[in-house]
Amino acid sequence: MEAAPCTVLFHSTLDDPSEWIPRLSTLLPNETIRAWPDEGDPANIDLAVLWTQPPGGLERYPRLSFVQSLGAGVNQLELDVLPPRLRVARMVDPAMGPMMAEYCLTAVLRYHRRFDAHERSQRAGRWDFIPPVSPRHFPVGVMGVGELGAVTATALAAHGFPVRGWSSRPRSLSGVTCFAGHSELPAFLDGLAALVCLLPLTAQTRGILNAALFDRLPNGAYLINAGRGAHLVEADLLAALASGRLAGATLDVLHEEPPPSDHPFWRHERVLLTPHVAALADPDGAASLVADNIMRFRRSEPVLNEVDRMRGY
Amino acid sequence: MEAAPCTVLFHSTLDDPSEWIPRLSTLLPNETIRAWPDEGDPANIDLAVLWTQPPGGLERYPRLSFVQSLGAGVNQLELDVLPPRLRVARMVDPAMGPMMAEYCLTAVLRYHRRFDAHERSQRAGRWDFIPPVSPRHFPVGVMGVGELGAVTATALAAHGFPVRGWSSRPRSLSGVTCFAGHSELPAFLDGLAALVCLLPLTAQTRGILNAALFDRLPNGAYLINAGRGAHLVEADLLAALASGRLAGATLDVLHEEPPPSDHPFWRHERVLLTPHVAALADPDGAASLVADNIMRFRRSEPVLNEVDRMRGY
Repeated sequence: MEAAPCTVLFHSTLDDPSEWIPRLSTLLPNETIRAWPDEGDPANIDLAVLWTQPPGGLERYPRLSFVQSLGAGVNQLELDVLPPRLRVARMVDPAMGPMMAEYCLTAVLRYHRRFDAHERSQRAGRWDFIPPVSPRHFPVGVMGVGELGAVTATALAAHGFPVRGWSSRPRSLSGVTCFAGHSELPAFLDGLAALVCLLPLTAQTRGILNAALFDRLPNGAYLINAGRGAHLVEADLLAALASGRLAGATLDVLHEEPPPSDHPFWRHERVLLTPHVAALADPDGAASLVADNIMRFRRSEPVLNEVDRMRGY
Repeated sequence: MEAAPCTVLFHSTLDDPSEWIPRLSTLLPNETIRAWPDEGDPANIDLAVLWTQPPGGLERYPRLSFVQSLGAGVNQLELDVLPPRLRVARMVDPAMGPMMAEYCLTAVLRYHRRFDAHERSQRAGRWDFIPPVSPRHFPVGVMGVGELGAVTATALAAHGFPVRGWSSRPRSLSGVTCFAGHSELPAFLDGLAALVCLLPLTAQTRGILNAALFDRLPNGAYLINAGRGAHLVEADLLAALASGRLAGATLDVLHEEPPPSDHPFWRHERVLLTPHVAALADPDGAASLVADNIMRFRRSEPVLNEVDRMRGY
């Protein structure tokens, strides 16, 4: 006997519903797929596919029992305010690893080959010859070596950069020197030319990109944050750029996206903002992953990549 | 019996004599190495290691018989005015291939991941979301698949870009679709997202980056010129950028380096200038290649990478 059809709500400020809804409708012909704000009666929503909570919050959906995140991280869902009975799964789209790795490689190469400096020289009308150095002399550190971080660290190492990885719990990664835990953070940071943050956002990692951490880096290091905006203490970044401790920062994530129009990052010549594009789920492949997880949930089978609500990722 | 010591003149506006002279002196203990302008009596100069001709020209050195170029190309030596008896060798430093490949990968990735657009949006205070596309949908063409071009094309293909190569004579390169000759140029250009020029500069390739060529590219294509400045018709590039045929250009070489202060490239927001840094001979390894070629010449053995003075490369 087949279960009664259920209603799935889709909401994202990043992912395009016109790409997702037709695919999900085809893959889940027995369910009703609704794209916010066309949600119908909130009391009928059983499941949700979300980047963030829709306006008004998830409290509006009394029957909601399962949320599939559209992001590799889930902090943007603000789990703390969700009832513990609500189950949540992260997005693990195999296409996102190479996409994130490519974004970070682009940002690291741009610094390694001094395109940032060349851009500033050009704007100032200066022809400043800076000879290139080998990637062997440009060590890169990757904080967070989960699904996206591991692919990224491996891709950077394959290009020829010496790569270190750091994570809260010990990991092992071929071709990458791995560090773990707070005690190994100074050794991880020592001498890095560029630091890439791909951590999950948790109580432990919130604000981890701060003045104390920057002070462990050599002068002139570069920062790339494609984790979450709240990893970064923005005032500390501004101070580190002003002092020369950091030579530049590429930020794909911010506390507020987009930042307010008077935010100093907009006009900072050593900050490059990208509009949260480092790695997105590709509906071509990811819609079937979402549909599969929804069917698993519906059949009371274990869902894939379920979030540990205590740990937060 | 040992030959009488000879005098080697070093001159470059790009390569640092303080890096090169000590290495060459150590490697060639029997020769006298002089760094221009400290050349002594011009009549005593037998051999030269050059980027360009020193001021006053090579006619000043009546005994000069062999020139080792510091560049992978030799057009900057202005061979046409040199006596045909003067033998010339190109620089083939194995370190230059990866360096050039890295430069081109940096420039291509910057466009592919739209960092150029993000930079413009940021300066305009706009948060323009542009979703990333797979490198599979970003075909890149490499003109010139000699030592540097072959390594570059292969590196771009390894990253995931569909790569085409074009050269005057047919070549074959694993993982790269190769085209040759003028007749195959339209097929090579058709649909390219980015075009990389690494050609040698000859009478046939001078001005090859012109309006007729740009018109074979799709609207919004990108140009990267790391060959020679004279490959490009600069006015045609400005017109192609104005019409939208080209969306941007990264130029490591120019007709005049640096360009005059009133040159429109300086302030063009879709032109990125880099100060001839794509690939330089690394004195650490290349000094021994130069010394080896000088010893070959001195022993009347065949020198490596000798230029065909008729062909021009």
